Amino acid sequence: MSWLPTLITKTPEDGYDLAIKLSRMAVKKTQPDDDARGRMREDYANSADSLTMVSEVVAINFQTVAQANNYWRD
Amino acid sequence: MSWLPTLITKTPEDGYDLAIKLSRMAVKKTQPDDDARGRMREDYANSADSLTMVSEVVAINFQTVAQANNYWRD
Amino acid sequence: MSWLPTLITKTPEDGYDLAIKLSRMAVKKTQPDDDARGRMREDYANSADSLTMVSEVVAINFQTVAQANNYWRD
Amino acid sequence: MSWLPTLITKTPEDGYDLAIKLSRMAVKKTQPDDDARGRMREDYANSADSLTMVSEVVAINFQTVAQANNYWRD
Amino acid sequence: MSWLPTLITKTPEDGYDLAIKLSRMAVKKTQPDDDARGRMREDYANSADSLTMVSEVVAINFQTVAQANNYWRD
Amino acid sequence: MSWLPTLITKTPEDGYDLAIKLSRMAVKKTQPDDDARGRMREDYANSADSLTMVSEVVAINFQTVAQANNYWRD
Repeated sequence: MSWLPTLITKTPEDGYDLAIKLSRMAVKKTQPDDDARGRMREDYANSADSLTMVSEVVAINFQTVAQANNYWRD
Repeated sequence: MSWLPTLITKTPEDGYDLAIKLSRMAVKKTQPDDDARGRMREDYANSADSLTMVSEVVAINFQTVAQANNYWRD
Repeated sequence: MSWLPTLITKTPEDGYDLAIKLSRMAVKKTQPDDDARGRMREDYANSADSLTMVSEVVAINFQTVAQANNYWRD
Repeated sequence: MSWLPTLITKTPEDGYDLAIKLSRMAVKKTQPDDDARGRMREDYANSADSLTMVSEVVAINFQTVAQANNYWRD
Repeated sequence: MSWLPTLITKTPEDGYDLAIKLSRMAVKKTQPDDDARGRMREDYANSADSLTMVSEVVAINFQTVAQANNYWRD
Repeated sequence: MSWLPTLITKTPEDGYDLAIKLSRMAVKKTQPDDDARGRMREDYANSADSLTMVSEVVAINFQTVAQANNYWRD
């Protein structure tokens, strides 16, 4: 079963969650060790700039997902 | 009730506010603790570079919202 | 009166100024205190990297405005 | 044999993997020494912000690949 | 006379130069003091990361100019 | 002879190389001194984050080149 069978989602909110998933997957594929990622959580979850950077990646991925779904206009 | 029922807004100004909401939501979903986010507020609200980074995320999300609304040209 | 009644501008130069306005508005909405923003001015106005970051946000917003205006080709 | 014969992939997941490949290739072409890149692995694989930056590059390349594939909608 | 009468250029190379001009103009409008900008030149012209950041802004503006010119395909 | 006569390339791989060329040209135009650029090479070629930043610029330029070539779909 693919972790990314499609970019199509039912609603904008689902699309936003998919954008978050896409953002996390690149991190997971670069650092596959769950414990290592867990140790870093404190670092970025308590740094304003780190969180803004995370938000930027989500924004870029949300552009892609929103376009794929024709902005859920149909 | 969804926090993001649609990307369509009545006016460009409403679209800009939605872009801000989208930018904040990724932060909230990464750091759900309201107090933790509140403690960081001082950090980024008084740093020029942090505010510029926030503005960049809003700019990216505003691209998405503006496209969804066909730039409010209709 | 809205601060953003439309994305349509008469000329590319006006569009560029609107991109600057869009870039500043996210900062203003995140840090509404005029004095606080004023105190930060020295920081970013005299740092090459801060100015480059500002220029990046303007570039992203100018993409949006230019698209909205069909690149002033008509 | 080209390392990039096409941007077309069968599935979104394959497209995501291609986006990772595109992201790594620019690094490889800038620093062709395998050992030098290997020594840096520890640095970015254990830094939250470095991983977020990597994720951002993947997001940008995934936009390109997704558009090339018409978002795998066909 | 406008500094930006049009986004249309004759050649891709001219378009690239316009992208550089667009990138610099946001800096100039944020820091209008020529001497202040001159003093910063040494900083960014001798820092690899600063130069990469400058190159990123040019890349974003070049996207806009290239689209405006339909990629000089006509 | 122009350094950028066209954005059209025969293959995706050639397009990727052009994206690298575009990324480097902004650096060259900002710091035209070959020796100065050479001295910086060690800095960014051995820093993971610097290389990721370089890769981001290439990704943005590759978006432009890929669009210009209609993703080499024709």
